Amino acid sequence: VSQTPSLEQIRAAAMRIAGHVHRTPVAGSATLDAMLDAQIHFKCENLQKVGAFKARGATNAVFSLDESQVRRGVITHSSGNHAAALAFACGLRGVACTIVMPRDAPRIKVDAVRGYGAEIVFCERDRRDQVCSELQRKQGSTLVHPFTDPAIIAGQGTAALELLEQVGALDIVLAPVGGGGLLSGTAIVVKELFPEARVIGAEPFAVDDAYRSLESGELQPTVEGAQSWGDGLMTGLGALNFRILSERDVEIVRVEEDEMVAAARFIVERMKLVVEPSAATVLAAMHRLGAQLKGKRVGAILSGGNTDFAWYPSPVSS
Amino acid sequence: VSQTPSLEQIRAAAMRIAGHVHRTPVAGSATLDAMLDAQIHFKCENLQKVGAFKARGATNAVFSLDESQVRRGVITHSSGNHAAALAFACGLRGVACTIVMPRDAPRIKVDAVRGYGAEIVFCERDRRDQVCSELQRKQGSTLVHPFTDPAIIAGQGTAALELLEQVGALDIVLAPVGGGGLLSGTAIVVKELFPEARVIGAEPFAVDDAYRSLESGELQPTVEGAQSWGDGLMTGLGALNFRILSERDVEIVRVEEDEMVAAARFIVERMKLVVEPSAATVLAAMHRLGAQLKGKRVGAILSGGNTDFAWYPSPVSS
Repeated sequence: VSQTPSLEQIRAAAMRIAGHVHRTPVAGSATLDAMLDAQIHFKCENLQKVGAFKARGATNAVFSLDESQVRRGVITHSSGNHAAALAFACGLRGVACTIVMPRDAPRIKVDAVRGYGAEIVFCERDRRDQVCSELQRKQGSTLVHPFTDPAIIAGQGTAALELLEQVGALDIVLAPVGGGGLLSGTAIVVKELFPEARVIGAEPFAVDDAYRSLESGELQPTVEGAQSWGDGLMTGLGALNFRILSERDVEIVRVEEDEMVAAARFIVERMKLVVEPSAATVLAAMHRLGAQLKGKRVGAILSGGNTDFAWYPSPVSS
Repeated sequence: VSQTPSLEQIRAAAMRIAGHVHRTPVAGSATLDAMLDAQIHFKCENLQKVGAFKARGATNAVFSLDESQVRRGVITHSSGNHAAALAFACGLRGVACTIVMPRDAPRIKVDAVRGYGAEIVFCERDRRDQVCSELQRKQGSTLVHPFTDPAIIAGQGTAALELLEQVGALDIVLAPVGGGGLLSGTAIVVKELFPEARVIGAEPFAVDDAYRSLESGELQPTVEGAQSWGDGLMTGLGALNFRILSERDVEIVRVEEDEMVAAARFIVERMKLVVEPSAATVLAAMHRLGAQLKGKRVGAILSGGNTDFAWYPSPVSS
């Protein structure tokens, strides 16, 4: 049986999570539209619960559990937005939640997860998988993988579904790509409803395994030890996600670090929206596409807004 | 004749500027509502054209000019949001615009005004009034004062009018106070439509002339040489604005610098909205009001989002 969620499953996810997560607004910029000679619609998932689209997938996954799974709880390993999102969703439904985190995870992320009421288990960074599996067996809990779980992919797809409901047909839709949960869900929705539309993933050059996987037709290994401001995109593309993207002719546009930072600054300074650099990859990719956007209706998912502004230039140097 | 704009004149201003400025969204935070046990509605003027409510007043003033005034152009002195707003509005109507600015005005503000097509005349900081008056006589141009001009006050009042249309009746409405244009317009609208509602100005302790003016019943002089992150609020209260606020029993709540910065951080980090510290005074004032807000429907105008983040703690120290 296919693990790939259908459009109908994504519609069902949208019904399931309605009332628990925000129907986020769509933002634009007259300045940007003039620069690119296009109509750009940003889906503001930075304004989503927990500050990222991850609330959609996690809420769908948690509210898809059966009663026996609810009793045994869920587990995942993550120090990022998925951890906070899963903790948030479990809090909504009263499900026990265990998050396995590296000992050196940023304090602010630890506090966020704890604030939602999850239990945190710390371990060495390279033992996360193992610790998570052992605990899962012991607890009998359900592992909610951040991007290969079909319920997660279906939940993330609801962002593009809403965007199309809000702004109508689009010629091009962009989303950032890391593990590929958001981009997979986006591709399913857009290609089903508008088969002629282009779906484009935006990826930092530093971690371009999705680009190389789709170019070569074979899933490439995760880039290890890379440095990028796109901290939400350091994960390697998942196998299921690779298949979903390949089958739908999804394209990848790679962006340089300075392009990502400049795009994030534009969104902060001109659009007054707080975004994390990962989210700004979609705008950086638009600038790379340049004349290809001319006269087009373009949608892009601003994936999240959780940032400490470490990438932001200090006032003196600006 | 009274210089005080009526509610009808503010309604006329709303019609006049519609299509030229944004009908800005209203934002809230479930976390904040829980903290304050109240329903808080922020009117997002940080998402307004030119990044501040000033676009409303300037657009109303420029589109209220008669043909002979249009031919002779407008002038003002400002290095802040009013300068950019007036330049923006003049660009819309094709009116010549002269901005008198101190030589040491920040480059970013100079560039913004120039970008909207205004002519900039630089002078020494203490000669701005004089240079502006001389130029006005020579040009025969119309001076558009940033907060005492009735057309400006009427335009700023449209923000509160929209907020009430968007969220319905409110028990308490807050706005920052510097010269008093925004707070005056807000007070006229709110007290006319909901006479029992409290209207509260939020003001930094460092420049608390509005507080002392309303307490003493006599307009107090501008505080000179003060230091505050609320750079939009350093101006002294105008005489007309003082009268409007006095006649309507407007209250002032003063806030400390650290309260303003903490409030701005909350809006940036939790609500993902870029605000300048001046705008965050309204949230800082809400925390001071504390239990007085319990069970109330509260509105507040987030006045602007033009900031270089100099006030934001560096990531290492956060």
